[in-house]
Amino acid sequence: MKPSWPETVGDAGQDETVDVWAPAELRIIQKKGGYRFALDSLLLSDFARFKPRDRVLELGTGGGIIALWLSRKYPEIHLVGLELQVGLMELARRNRILNQAENRISLVRGDIRLLAHFFRPASFDAVVTNPPYRPLRTGRINPQSEKALARHELTVDLEQLLAASGQALKKGGRFFLIYPVRRLAALLALSRQNRLEPKRLRLVQSLADREADWVLLEAVKEGGEELRVLPALVVYKNPGVYSPEVRGLLGR
Amino acid sequence: MKPSWPETVGDAGQDETVDVWAPAELRIIQKKGGYRFALDSLLLSDFARFKPRDRVLELGTGGGIIALWLSRKYPEIHLVGLELQVGLMELARRNRILNQAENRISLVRGDIRLLAHFFRPASFDAVVTNPPYRPLRTGRINPQSEKALARHELTVDLEQLLAASGQALKKGGRFFLIYPVRRLAALLALSRQNRLEPKRLRLVQSLADREADWVLLEAVKEGGEELRVLPALVVYKNPGVYSPEVRGLLGR
Repeated sequence: MKPSWPETVGDAGQDETVDVWAPAELRIIQKKGGYRFALDSLLLSDFARFKPRDRVLELGTGGGIIALWLSRKYPEIHLVGLELQVGLMELARRNRILNQAENRISLVRGDIRLLAHFFRPASFDAVVTNPPYRPLRTGRINPQSEKALARHELTVDLEQLLAASGQALKKGGRFFLIYPVRRLAALLALSRQNRLEPKRLRLVQSLADREADWVLLEAVKEGGEELRVLPALVVYKNPGVYSPEVRGLLGR
Repeated sequence: MKPSWPETVGDAGQDETVDVWAPAELRIIQKKGGYRFALDSLLLSDFARFKPRDRVLELGTGGGIIALWLSRKYPEIHLVGLELQVGLMELARRNRILNQAENRISLVRGDIRLLAHFFRPASFDAVVTNPPYRPLRTGRINPQSEKALARHELTVDLEQLLAASGQALKKGGRFFLIYPVRRLAALLALSRQNRLEPKRLRLVQSLADREADWVLLEAVKEGGEELRVLPALVVYKNPGVYSPEVRGLLGR
């Protein structure tokens, strides 16, 4: 599901492109050979919901696209992006400047597994994350290490990610994630183990008659048991033709 | 979602009806005021899949409709129905005779929580169950006790049900269940705790644009992690008009 957007308007540096994402008027520098913003990030940004003045943590902020999109959509929230990789952090800093979001997004370089070194426990109203998702020892490890780290669980696994999120959130705080549906059972079980009660779930499937690929999840820290499952999000109306919902998200 | 089928063709005894379910040519005696066969049982019967000569356990067989439907669809399997309530067990016996299924269905009266008293561990190829599903202390307890026992977790809760199922199944054995989707997280977490790995999941929603009501689950005893989520089953095309898929199941 590699989208054909946003539009590339030029080169930034060596091996880089500048892409403009029309609906939010964001300008995003991305590495040509590195991890590039894709549909999963867009869907997560649309699924997440915040209250004015929420303090929001993004775990694994990458080049900063989700943080930028959210701070455009919710101008009153304050976002903190945590990212381990130097190269991506640098890219996120440049993207933040390019979009004049310096006072709304803080960027912190660090390891999700060492969250307590950076933030006080229960200090966030929301956590949002589009984590690496191939479990280690499956799939081919990409030789380009930045891409490999962003895609594989080389540095953080699902269990560690949910533990960190549970730790960071206040009681009643909200957790938003997109993840491959084939690990849904582990995701829901580990969420509950970390006192993140699944409350809203939406499947993403490429076509109406296909099996789901991804799941969007909203969980609430120490929430009561009551899960709602929304109608599935269908990406393509016909092969190659986006559905009206996704066209709306893309602003075309 | 109370279906308007099967067709009631007459009275059997006092406060009883005989209903004919056309596609399988089953004749089912049901209590007028008791628990009556509904759409959830039909959907589960359609979702479950067996191999020839499978030994299948139904937990909470009630009046026997699921067992009868499955033994009609898979004539070579042997079904064992476990039911706690005397009245429902008696009804199941009469329904078994009415449908000439004495040699294909065994009926055992007993408590799911005491499964080890009735069956050897790991002695079944499949377990199928449409269990009572309102957790205790929620909802209004129906004053008619048979209905209350069949609907509420008065005698067995989800955890006990999954423990019993995990115990009854052979390695690689299959577990099939229909359950309210609002408890999906607990369902998947408890399945894994009992070494029943969720493998195939289908949501059931009343209309295409509505939230899901039920979930159909297939899990495999000691299976590997890899969940598939099928496109949702939509019951009504328009309010009051069954979808083509459900019309197909109803044979009309």
